[in-house]
Amino acid sequence: MVARNNVFYAQSGGVTAVINASACGVIEAAKQTNRLGKVFAGKNGILGALREELIDTSKESSAAISALRYTPSGAFGSCRYKLPSVQDNLSEYKRILAVFKAHGIGYFFYNGGGDSQDTAHKVALFSREQGYPVTCIGIPKTIDNDLAYTDTCPGFGSVAKYVAISTREAGMDVASMAASSTKVFVLEVMGRHAGWIAASAGLARSKGSEPPHLILFPEIPLDPVNFCNKVKASVDRNGYCVVVASEGVRFGNGKFVAEAAEKDAFGHSQLGGVAPKLVAMIGKALGYKCHWAVSDYLQRAARHIASATDVAQAYAVGQAAVEFALAGKNGVMVTIKRESTDPYRWTVDSVPLDKVANVEKKMPRSFISRDGWGISKACRVYLAPLIQGEDYPAYVNGLPQYARLNNQLVKKKLAAFASIQS
Amino acid sequence: MVARNNVFYAQSGGVTAVINASACGVIEAAKQTNRLGKVFAGKNGILGALREELIDTSKESSAAISALRYTPSGAFGSCRYKLPSVQDNLSEYKRILAVFKAHGIGYFFYNGGGDSQDTAHKVALFSREQGYPVTCIGIPKTIDNDLAYTDTCPGFGSVAKYVAISTREAGMDVASMAASSTKVFVLEVMGRHAGWIAASAGLARSKGSEPPHLILFPEIPLDPVNFCNKVKASVDRNGYCVVVASEGVRFGNGKFVAEAAEKDAFGHSQLGGVAPKLVAMIGKALGYKCHWAVSDYLQRAARHIASATDVAQAYAVGQAAVEFALAGKNGVMVTIKRESTDPYRWTVDSVPLDKVANVEKKMPRSFISRDGWGISKACRVYLAPLIQGEDYPAYVNGLPQYARLNNQLVKKKLAAFASIQS
Repeated sequence: MVARNNVFYAQSGGVTAVINASACGVIEAAKQTNRLGKVFAGKNGILGALREELIDTSKESSAAISALRYTPSGAFGSCRYKLPSVQDNLSEYKRILAVFKAHGIGYFFYNGGGDSQDTAHKVALFSREQGYPVTCIGIPKTIDNDLAYTDTCPGFGSVAKYVAISTREAGMDVASMAASSTKVFVLEVMGRHAGWIAASAGLARSKGSEPPHLILFPEIPLDPVNFCNKVKASVDRNGYCVVVASEGVRFGNGKFVAEAAEKDAFGHSQLGGVAPKLVAMIGKALGYKCHWAVSDYLQRAARHIASATDVAQAYAVGQAAVEFALAGKNGVMVTIKRESTDPYRWTVDSVPLDKVANVEKKMPRSFISRDGWGISKACRVYLAPLIQGEDYPAYVNGLPQYARLNNQLVKKKLAAFASIQS
Repeated sequence: MVARNNVFYAQSGGVTAVINASACGVIEAAKQTNRLGKVFAGKNGILGALREELIDTSKESSAAISALRYTPSGAFGSCRYKLPSVQDNLSEYKRILAVFKAHGIGYFFYNGGGDSQDTAHKVALFSREQGYPVTCIGIPKTIDNDLAYTDTCPGFGSVAKYVAISTREAGMDVASMAASSTKVFVLEVMGRHAGWIAASAGLARSKGSEPPHLILFPEIPLDPVNFCNKVKASVDRNGYCVVVASEGVRFGNGKFVAEAAEKDAFGHSQLGGVAPKLVAMIGKALGYKCHWAVSDYLQRAARHIASATDVAQAYAVGQAAVEFALAGKNGVMVTIKRESTDPYRWTVDSVPLDKVANVEKKMPRSFISRDGWGISKACRVYLAPLIQGEDYPAYVNGLPQYARLNNQLVKKKLAAFASIQS
């Protein structure tokens, strides 16, 4: 019988500036114990298990693994693929378990958002039923900060820092130009359902008159007339107006502001494009010269200005996954627990996967200012620690030197699996 | 008679991450000599002279002045205002000279692009004709890198660094996602007439298969069919495709790709919006899932990741303006002279304003690869030194602490001037 002490680690969903720091935490912690075997990483996340494409991380140098700590993106490839329920697709669960058995895998660390926690939960249950119990631990990751039971999600703090810095910098730029040129600047940030990322722009403001002057949240319906009036009031008062808008901001009738945009090849309206819509609105109503930016992937990939707090937490949740597994925990997600805010102190903890799976953490209404255009003091208190500290990567020739792995695959032992849905 | 040893310094046109470093160079160099009086900065550039709104920089602390070195934007305000010819608007030239006389100003340092060099030239000639000769020195600034006679323009190197880093980071993100999600990413950068900024994205690539896979220059007409074929070829070969596009890219008929976008209140088509157009094109032809970003002001305000080389040069051209003026030079622009590329060595020099004014430095065709979709080796050799080194600002609470000046105005001595065109 093959030993069962190998680990399967996979990255899932949209990647972040620090998900590789979690990978680094897993691999380095696994190396430090003699109770675990190899860490196999899924090539392109869970697809790597379905396709038996397992990356042997022991073939990478220690230097390369250690460089993961400051490398953005998903070093092993991620995927957007949600496993259906066991009833709906028994074959995929069986396949995963067959691959785990064939490669002596007894530990599954799944690094992702709510869907991934759900998958980890299902695999834990299924493997037990099948008499090959796999220790399943969820490692949180999402820039959207929408996982419940954890104070924050690794990935979010770095986006928050990027957005706050970009808002401050671009805001100063507009302030310089406003007397004779651009009077309004709109920055579009991610956040389809929750305004956490847009909210973080509010950290850029240290005095009342500073940018951002208006934040548009998915939680607050946009009234175009009100909005233009607020823009005008800011230009009248400050000489200019800086707006930070969630991609997911909607009109009162529930329609996305971005929805009038081009549809994709499948007829789906793709989000992204709120900023030009808002600028068209302002231009028509007020005639101001406007500029706009859409930060898209730049915001979540910006490892060059990652939050040191976020990096430390991302590493810690990876490391804790290994420690919790060795301590006998199973079917849990690692969480960040805030011990105190001032001074900021945090520890790692855990929550059962069945509690966290598929629960979305909304931004509390109390985190949005009463008038709906900015953040409250409570929100600032919550957010401020998450962007603390800089954790600069190494540079060569003026560019960050991010890890480039060999990603060598383990020899396959099973026949090909034909029926992957994706 | 009032002494004539005060200085008038003004910022002009689009601001940059390092124009304040030039201001810092001027003010600190002026302080170090006993031959100059006060440095007055124009509030909102040359408008400050016309409106007699002079900021007394001696009222700022040394620490605040020194912090200008790492503060983006235009600390005194900039403007988009081009002085007409003397014939067309004698009154404005007379007004400027009257303000200079009233405040004992004998030196005019104008920090801007081609138009500003032209204005500095006209003021130099006019002041001599009027028997009140003012020493006029141009200080180069433009992210567009389009000033002739200088090896590079302060402001450009930092944008180049930002764009190269952002391309590398977002490119790694797309690479992680491509197996089951986004296959194409388009980053739109500034550059209406010249492709210098888009070209700098090419520095992100250290191997053939790495992003950016396609660069779109204003210099090379875009054929949509060819373009989509190239995108498909990159996806087929690499699994994904990263495109960096100049805002000024045009079709073969000369029309801006962005032009189909919303018009502004005055019916002018505003640039910005190439990325969504390209993505619509790709989606329609190829059906790939695409993402896009428009970096707009973020790219030129990103002092947090400025090029140390650029910062040093920006400071040096400010300092040199003072030194050249004291050495008796007049009617010149300070230039950066490349002494050698490897190792990179540069000095400051000067060129007569009448030569540099209104001449645009285009990107040589030899800097674009033969097939038109990337940069040549010569371009890489030219660009590489300009992004060298990091020059991080100070951080407090996770955010850069940029200078905030008091901008105290000097008491006016003249009656208001009513006829400013702007």
